[in-house]
Amino acid sequence: MFSLTVVDHIMIAHSFRGEEFGPAQRLHGATFIVEAEFRAPQLDHLNLLVDIGLAKDELRRILAPLDYRNLDEEGGFAGQNTTTEFLCAHIHGALAAACQEGRLGPHGWEVASLKVLLRESHVAWAAYDATLASR
Amino acid sequence: MFSLTVVDHIMIAHSFRGEEFGPAQRLHGATFIVEAEFRAPQLDHLNLLVDIGLAKDELRRILAPLDYRNLDEEGGFAGQNTTTEFLCAHIHGALAAACQEGRLGPHGWEVASLKVLLRESHVAWAAYDATLASR
Amino acid sequence: MFSLTVVDHIMIAHSFRGEEFGPAQRLHGATFIVEAEFRAPQLDHLNLLVDIGLAKDELRRILAPLDYRNLDEEGGFAGQNTTTEFLCAHIHGALAAACQEGRLGPHGWEVASLKVLLRESHVAWAAYDATLASR
Amino acid sequence: MFSLTVVDHIMIAHSFRGEEFGPAQRLHGATFIVEAEFRAPQLDHLNLLVDIGLAKDELRRILAPLDYRNLDEEGGFAGQNTTTEFLCAHIHGALAAACQEGRLGPHGWEVASLKVLLRESHVAWAAYDATLASR
Amino acid sequence: MFSLTVVDHIMIAHSFRGEEFGPAQRLHGATFIVEAEFRAPQLDHLNLLVDIGLAKDELRRILAPLDYRNLDEEGGFAGQNTTTEFLCAHIHGALAAACQEGRLGPHGWEVASLKVLLRESHVAWAAYDATLASR
Amino acid sequence: MFSLTVVDHIMIAHSFRGEEFGPAQRLHGATFIVEAEFRAPQLDHLNLLVDIGLAKDELRRILAPLDYRNLDEEGGFAGQNTTTEFLCAHIHGALAAACQEGRLGPHGWEVASLKVLLRESHVAWAAYDATLASR
Repeated sequence: MFSLTVVDHIMIAHSFRGEEFGPAQRLHGATFIVEAEFRAPQLDHLNLLVDIGLAKDELRRILAPLDYRNLDEEGGFAGQNTTTEFLCAHIHGALAAACQEGRLGPHGWEVASLKVLLRESHVAWAAYDATLASR
Repeated sequence: MFSLTVVDHIMIAHSFRGEEFGPAQRLHGATFIVEAEFRAPQLDHLNLLVDIGLAKDELRRILAPLDYRNLDEEGGFAGQNTTTEFLCAHIHGALAAACQEGRLGPHGWEVASLKVLLRESHVAWAAYDATLASR
Repeated sequence: MFSLTVVDHIMIAHSFRGEEFGPAQRLHGATFIVEAEFRAPQLDHLNLLVDIGLAKDELRRILAPLDYRNLDEEGGFAGQNTTTEFLCAHIHGALAAACQEGRLGPHGWEVASLKVLLRESHVAWAAYDATLASR
Repeated sequence: MFSLTVVDHIMIAHSFRGEEFGPAQRLHGATFIVEAEFRAPQLDHLNLLVDIGLAKDELRRILAPLDYRNLDEEGGFAGQNTTTEFLCAHIHGALAAACQEGRLGPHGWEVASLKVLLRESHVAWAAYDATLASR
Repeated sequence: MFSLTVVDHIMIAHSFRGEEFGPAQRLHGATFIVEAEFRAPQLDHLNLLVDIGLAKDELRRILAPLDYRNLDEEGGFAGQNTTTEFLCAHIHGALAAACQEGRLGPHGWEVASLKVLLRESHVAWAAYDATLASR
Repeated sequence: MFSLTVVDHIMIAHSFRGEEFGPAQRLHGATFIVEAEFRAPQLDHLNLLVDIGLAKDELRRILAPLDYRNLDEEGGFAGQNTTTEFLCAHIHGALAAACQEGRLGPHGWEVASLKVLLRESHVAWAAYDATLASR
């Protein structure tokens, strides 16, 4: 299996509901370094997994509505704790759709699985990894 | 599959038996940066995989008997070469037990697999990755 | 000149006033990886610059009132843009006082200069570096 | 499953054919940080996955014909775009052969799978990961 | 003294003349991670050293004529070995001019010194650091 | 001022005397990532600060008597706490001598200052930085 990973980042504010969160119940924020890993069993005729330029553009397009936002009020997350794990799955869903709707080029259809990893600090990170439905 | 990773480190002394080890047969030491990756198919009602505070505390509790020690004489490793690979499996076993004994909270039971990675330098690391027995 | 650096981090929310900030005028947030570098011309009789345990404890004590906060409303920064540069100088002032008030042990008096660096992402960081007034 | 990773790097020139590559159609170059991850279900009697010295030596031997080269003219890649993904698979093939030909020692036969990852920058990398044919 | 650092990267081909360079006399290439560190004694009325957006744009504008190029033939370096050290000074000169010509905004005039660091791999980097002529 | 940095690492055992060290009084160990930064005001006729191959070789030659050792018994450090700070100065002295004795080539004489930094973990490091006596 081949993989290709591109990196971007967002800077957001949010707060969590639930005593388990302790001080993170207060409004605070995070820089998330976002790593999107695309996987496919074969390369295309140019020896590419997907066009890296399209991959970066799609990732940016998906992150833009979250970047420099307070996720308690924007982003469509009402009633959700926007934990690092949760945001991984959210971004994963949008990138999977981009592959399946052809926005990563014709070879985007060949992406078999996708992993989205968010680093919240040098000592903690989370990811969501899942296969994509075949065409 | 979701994953959540927390990081800690230990500073230990040890030596290896076997000509294959060359100069590492002498008493020497290492800083191990320890990355513990918990995986589960679902998040809990708070959108957490496991409580990150409990995860850090359990990892520290497991590392404490190794930290600032000579593993040739302490840690219960008599007759073993405490290679990076071996220590990964040792820490993995203790963290797996912590999940299964409820010390990572009720959702710790949902941890399906666990990876423990130890970085011994910027140019070498090892890991042990295994599924956990279901309840 | 000797130096010793210890690392911690904070996760904060804030917003900026001024058209120059573009989207960063909105409420957003950041993880700041904080590196505090202490410098002294000599080591003490134990070959230490300062006690690394005391250095970590003081840095944590200084960061605690900022951590998991909205700096627009807490931290005593009314009327200030809490840019990365600005926060470096704020933390620098508090650590310099800690050295000069003896909270880093007797050798803390010997700290000649101090640099506080905050990484806001993998592609941007700021610092404040200044000598300390001698006793 | 155990894993052991060793790291090396190469500095190469190349160009790509295909409009999709944009400015990368011009002759340019890259530093590739190469991470080779060996995996095996068991450790040997010394608690080693493979001899780390042999692993480093084999990786260097395989990289040497690529290092400080223009891959458009050397390395046996005529008619191929030497993308990061492609080079991962090339190096993977050579390392897999090294395991299967006994050049990583007797326990090299036990290597069940192998991942080769090449970092082309701090914001992009690729990998090839595959099981090895059993003896 | 305050500092602000922004990061970008380039991927270039080049070769060196001189027996001292050994295999690097051949046409090869490099990814250079470029860190530009601006320093000033004071922040502006917004608590900024320089506008980080302008700093990133100027750095990109300066790097663009080098990126995805063979420096043996392009970039105006005829007769020069484009070592990492040399390229640091070249980029430094262009960024210093950008400060002094007002392209980093009015506070760009206050930049007192500038350091340009290029990482050629995880184990080697170079820099050029110099004060800027005052207005 | 130009600078050039090369990186190596050592894996050592040691213990400290003095109650201030707490658990580090026990025999333990460390991986030290060693960064040696050479500085000179001018480059040579090849656009080099010093020959990077010679710099790496000298650093390795200096580190070899420490690597895979118990510094309580070897290395000539009787009666000394081999703290990270102390080891920086020790290695600095040996590298400074290498410059001044011509082992870094003729341009080694031009090295004006030298910084040796040892990373003991991802959250702590120390350095020694000093000018070299001119010829």
